[in-house]
Amino acid sequence: MRLLVVGTGLVGTSLALAARAAGHEVALADLDPAHLALARELVGDQPVGDAEPDIVAVAVPPSATAAVMAEALAAHPAATVTDVCSVKAPVLETLAASGADLARVVAGHPMAGRETSGPAAASAELFHGRPWLLTPTAQTDPARLAQVERLVADTGAVARVIAADDHDRAVALTSHTPQVVASLMAARLADADGELIAVAGQGLRDVVRIAQSDPGLWADILTTNADEVVPVLDAVAADLDRVRGSLRAGGTAEVVRVMGAGNEGSARLPAKHGGSPAQYVDVPVEVSDTPGALGRLFLAAGGAGINLEDVRIEHTVGRLTAIAHLHVLPAAAADLRSALAHSGWRVLE
Amino acid sequence: MRLLVVGTGLVGTSLALAARAAGHEVALADLDPAHLALARELVGDQPVGDAEPDIVAVAVPPSATAAVMAEALAAHPAATVTDVCSVKAPVLETLAASGADLARVVAGHPMAGRETSGPAAASAELFHGRPWLLTPTAQTDPARLAQVERLVADTGAVARVIAADDHDRAVALTSHTPQVVASLMAARLADADGELIAVAGQGLRDVVRIAQSDPGLWADILTTNADEVVPVLDAVAADLDRVRGSLRAGGTAEVVRVMGAGNEGSARLPAKHGGSPAQYVDVPVEVSDTPGALGRLFLAAGGAGINLEDVRIEHTVGRLTAIAHLHVLPAAAADLRSALAHSGWRVLE
Repeated sequence: MRLLVVGTGLVGTSLALAARAAGHEVALADLDPAHLALARELVGDQPVGDAEPDIVAVAVPPSATAAVMAEALAAHPAATVTDVCSVKAPVLETLAASGADLARVVAGHPMAGRETSGPAAASAELFHGRPWLLTPTAQTDPARLAQVERLVADTGAVARVIAADDHDRAVALTSHTPQVVASLMAARLADADGELIAVAGQGLRDVVRIAQSDPGLWADILTTNADEVVPVLDAVAADLDRVRGSLRAGGTAEVVRVMGAGNEGSARLPAKHGGSPAQYVDVPVEVSDTPGALGRLFLAAGGAGINLEDVRIEHTVGRLTAIAHLHVLPAAAADLRSALAHSGWRVLE
Repeated sequence: MRLLVVGTGLVGTSLALAARAAGHEVALADLDPAHLALARELVGDQPVGDAEPDIVAVAVPPSATAAVMAEALAAHPAATVTDVCSVKAPVLETLAASGADLARVVAGHPMAGRETSGPAAASAELFHGRPWLLTPTAQTDPARLAQVERLVADTGAVARVIAADDHDRAVALTSHTPQVVASLMAARLADADGELIAVAGQGLRDVVRIAQSDPGLWADILTTNADEVVPVLDAVAADLDRVRGSLRAGGTAEVVRVMGAGNEGSARLPAKHGGSPAQYVDVPVEVSDTPGALGRLFLAAGGAGINLEDVRIEHTVGRLTAIAHLHVLPAAAADLRSALAHSGWRVLE
C-alpha cells in the first residue's frame, strides 16, 4: 500500500512510522520545512513520484483539516482520503458543502496522544491497543472503508465505526469538557500562595493531571467542536451557579443534588474490560522509596496467584514512603492481605 | 493517656483504634447507639468513670463540631479538647464567641479518609504517614499543643502547625474546590447516553475519581467553609463564563489563556517528596492481564537497579492489555527501556 501523510506532527509522523513498520510505502508532506525534514529523517521518506498514493492521511490541525482533505481529493483523484482530526461532523459538512467526492472520504480519529507534540515525540507504537474511531458517511465506498480499516489494524489500533455526530457528542462529553474542567481547576493554582498548594493531596493531582495539554492545539479542537462542547459547558455552568447560590445562602440542597448526580455519573464509567470500578476492593500498602520495592510488592501479590485489576500510587506530603492502592476482586482481597502481611508488608487497614 | 472520643464514625473510631494500639486508655461516646455499639465492639470501650479524660477528641460533622467541643470543655474542665473537623476558623470563632476556654483547645484536621464511612470502615492505620494539621490559637496553652502532638504522632500521622485561616484557604483551594469540580463533571455523565460514555479514556477517569464522595458529609464541609470556597468557585465560574463566551463567538483567546494558566498551575503541584512532576520521564509499557504480570514488570525494573518514582496504569477500552506508565528520573529512562526490552517487554515508544 502507498500512503501519503500530510502533516508531520506527533500523530502524522507516528502514523508514518507505524505504516513503514507494517511494510507500506510512505511519503510525507508538510508546510513546515523543519517538521518535514525531521520527520523524513525519522521515517525515511519515499517520494511517491509518478506512483499515486492509495491513501492520503491528513494529520493537520482541526481548523485546517477540511481544506487540506479537499486539496488531497483534488490532487489525487484515485486515492482514499482519511484524517486524524478529533472533531468529525464539521469537517465532513465543510467537505460536503465544497462538493468534494465523499465516496473516497473515510474520516477517522485515533484515540491516542501524549503530553509532548511534534515529530520528535512520534512513535510507531503510539496507536498500539488504542481505539481508532472511523466515521464513514452514507456516500463512503465500503471498499475504501475496508482499506482504511486495514491500515488502522496495521498500526496496532482497534478500528470502530461510529456516526460523526455521535463521535463529536461523545468526545465533547468524555474528552473536551474534562479538559476544560481540569484546566479551570489548575488555573486556580497559577497565582495561589505556594504554602496553600503544599497541602495538596492525590485528589487534586488526579483532577488536574490532563491540564498540562497544549493550549493552542486545544483551542483549535474546542472551537471546531464548539457546537457540541458549549452545551455541556453550559450545563456545568448552570450546576456551578446553583451550587454557588446554595452555598452563599447557607443551604446544602444543590450541593447534595450535584454530588449525588456525580456519584451516579462516575459509577457509570467503564472500568477495565467494561467492568465497574465499584466491583474492586482497594488494599492499601505502604511502599518504601528503594529500588525494586514496588517490584517486590507486586511479585508478592503475583506469587499468591492474585491478579491486580488496577494499581494507584499515592504520594503523601512530607513522607519518604508512598501508599500503593492495589485493586482486586472482592474474593481475592482477604488472600492478598494475608499474603502481603505474611511477607512483611504493612497493609494499611 | 486517657482519651475520650466523641463521635464514632470513620475518623473517630479510627483514632480510637490507633490510640488503643499505642497503649492509651480510650472511652467512646456517640448520640447514635448503633454506631456506638459497633465502635465499642471494634475498639473495646473503657468507660472513663471517675477518671477524667486527658484529651477529648471531637469527631462529629463540621456543623456540630463547635457545639460539641463547647460541651466537652464544660463537662471536662481539666481536659484538652481537640477535633478532626476539615474546616477550622469558623469552629474556633464560634467557640470564642461562646466564651469557651480556648487555652484548652487544640483544633486539628487529619488529612486522611476513604470512600466508605462509618465505624465499620475504621482502621488503626488510617492516619499512618498522613499530614495532621493543627491550628492552635494565640490563647492555646503550649503544653496542651505538645500533648495533642504526641497523640498525633502515636497514630503514625505527621503533625504540622498552621494558622486556622491559612488552613481553610488551603483546603478550599486544594480539596473542597476540586471536589466540587470533579462532581460537576461526573454529574454530566449521570443521564448521558451509555454509548457516548463508552469511549471515555483515562483522562476523564482521573478527573472524576473523587466524585464518589458522600454528598451529605461534603455538603456539611462546603457549607461550613463557604466563606473560603465560594470565592474560589466564583473565580472558576468567571473563567468558565469567559471560555463559553469565547467559544460561542468562535474565538480562542480565553481558551488559550485559561489553559495556559492551567499549564502553570498544574506544574506548581508538589510531586513526590516535593519534586516537580515535570522532572520525570514516562516510559509506557504494555502489560497483559495475567497474575503476576505487573510484578514481573516491576521486578525487571528493580533488577536493573532503577527506582520507579511513580506508576500509573492506563486501561484502554476494548483491549485485554493495559499500559503501565513508569515514571523515572531522566537519567534512568534509557537504561529502563533497554532493560525492559531485553526482558521481552513491549515498551510503547
